[in-house]
Amino acid sequence: MELVTVEDIRAAADNLAGIAVRTPLLPQTWGTPERPLSLKPENLQPVGAFKIRGAYHAIASLPDEVRRGGVVTHSSGNHGQAVAYAAAVFGVPAVVVVPDVAPATKIESIRSYGAEVVLVPGAERLDTTERIAAERGLAIVPPFDHRDVIAGQGTVGLEILADEPAVDVVLVQVGGGGLASGVSTAVKALRPTAKVYGVEPAVAPDARDSLAAGRLVPYPDEQRYASIADGMRTALSELTLAHLSAHLDGIVTVAEDEIRAAVGVLARQGRLVAEPSGATTTAAYLYHVDELPTGRTVAVVSGGNLPAELLADLVTA
Amino acid sequence: MELVTVEDIRAAADNLAGIAVRTPLLPQTWGTPERPLSLKPENLQPVGAFKIRGAYHAIASLPDEVRRGGVVTHSSGNHGQAVAYAAAVFGVPAVVVVPDVAPATKIESIRSYGAEVVLVPGAERLDTTERIAAERGLAIVPPFDHRDVIAGQGTVGLEILADEPAVDVVLVQVGGGGLASGVSTAVKALRPTAKVYGVEPAVAPDARDSLAAGRLVPYPDEQRYASIADGMRTALSELTLAHLSAHLDGIVTVAEDEIRAAVGVLARQGRLVAEPSGATTTAAYLYHVDELPTGRTVAVVSGGNLPAELLADLVTA
Repeated sequence: MELVTVEDIRAAADNLAGIAVRTPLLPQTWGTPERPLSLKPENLQPVGAFKIRGAYHAIASLPDEVRRGGVVTHSSGNHGQAVAYAAAVFGVPAVVVVPDVAPATKIESIRSYGAEVVLVPGAERLDTTERIAAERGLAIVPPFDHRDVIAGQGTVGLEILADEPAVDVVLVQVGGGGLASGVSTAVKALRPTAKVYGVEPAVAPDARDSLAAGRLVPYPDEQRYASIADGMRTALSELTLAHLSAHLDGIVTVAEDEIRAAVGVLARQGRLVAEPSGATTTAAYLYHVDELPTGRTVAVVSGGNLPAELLADLVTA
Repeated sequence: MELVTVEDIRAAADNLAGIAVRTPLLPQTWGTPERPLSLKPENLQPVGAFKIRGAYHAIASLPDEVRRGGVVTHSSGNHGQAVAYAAAVFGVPAVVVVPDVAPATKIESIRSYGAEVVLVPGAERLDTTERIAAERGLAIVPPFDHRDVIAGQGTVGLEILADEPAVDVVLVQVGGGGLASGVSTAVKALRPTAKVYGVEPAVAPDARDSLAAGRLVPYPDEQRYASIADGMRTALSELTLAHLSAHLDGIVTVAEDEIRAAVGVLARQGRLVAEPSGATTTAAYLYHVDELPTGRTVAVVSGGNLPAELLADLVTA
């Protein structure tokens, strides 16, 4: 299997200039001296998540005549918003297939970027996406299982290295694995001595088990959906497993109460609104220090879209 | 009176490289087409406010032998924390004179940076600061009434222009006026056609009245302390009034309920934790659009230090 290279990621960075925010590293005064902490605040991207990087780069990489025909995806979450936003930048049509149980706020947000929302029963999402793509001649932009998407997400890693060339440890979310694949590719290419750890919810650690087994080890839906980290309920693909097998130094799994507490710490101490998925790396830093090397540490805050009531609850928890 | 120049601000920027975070402009999807909105998130600085810029630059500009003797200031708020942080970077002693009614969290925060806290009755703050400075040979670092402090804060304006050279409107907080003095100096020097508006609480609009009268028009304490924007309860000095008279295009005053609502919008839509003072410019953008020109607009988010309970309250208000 051909893996994404740092050259692919550099090409993505060229595409993303002026589209994705060049987020800074934010040094935190509440880190420990052994592990000075900086945050990479991807929650501050226009759609509130790193997903704009992969979605935009994937759409930008389509042949002109294909892109003009429009795009379709099946994520109700941050990737769906990112595809809608990126398609609007190009002025091409976008369809987002959304399970009919999705919250109204997410549907409204996707529509606000001008995309068409197609509501279907959850189990029909993939089939419907493929049918619409075929019927209307739309290009499918998958959330993570695509080399261009991985290359786009990898620009987060390029920027970390540019801003902190001496970084020792990078903590990155693993849901479907697109972000972790891209970031670990960039970091290991530019600084092989740096360690990259994936972080996922302990209630459904499919990345940990898949890496240990050397093959995909999925968890049942009910277990994946037990995590508050709704952006990380997906499982790895063969493509992302191959990247993570090649580049990751380990997986840290975090408990639900640790994730909830980390959302509060990021708001109070980091002045950042992070969704539960975005706070998992901070949870690893705060509560799993014995599993991590010492040194200059960067935690990616992957997104910041969560209900206001939940945020209010976790800020004072 | 000699005003700060853009060359002074450029020199400050050189000093601040690697100390202050180079905050990006964050394009917001909830701005209006007539006034595309970007935020300048100074709440993401290490001490949670732009104040690190002026405090650090002022300390860096002291002669070596003076700086080695240490510094003193009398702010219990963000400037006190910034002086403590900046002094720690230089490894010199810092004393922060704090009114004995200050919340324990603020005192702890100042101490966490290694500064000595001297508690006094509020009315004795200035006298105590001057006495300690004289007795111990410490240099006073005032919160805004100082050219080096203004030059440091002005780097916010340089960065806005670097990231959005075609900016049309800049909205900036006016408390003591240091930030607005520096920002307006930089913006007008680099793009004379851009408009710069100061924003202050309507309950005590001393900047508006002072600019109209051409002299300092202070408001009584009880009126200034009626605003939830606790970072803006100070009044202009002759020095900052002179800068604002030369450079500002106008003042927008915002109501208390507008400030509170803007904190919620910034958290929910901007994924930023802003203190009430930091949200005043967003309040101006949201609720005083008829007082502002059209065009590309940048709102400075000056700080993000507020009690968790207040944040939780305003997020869902």
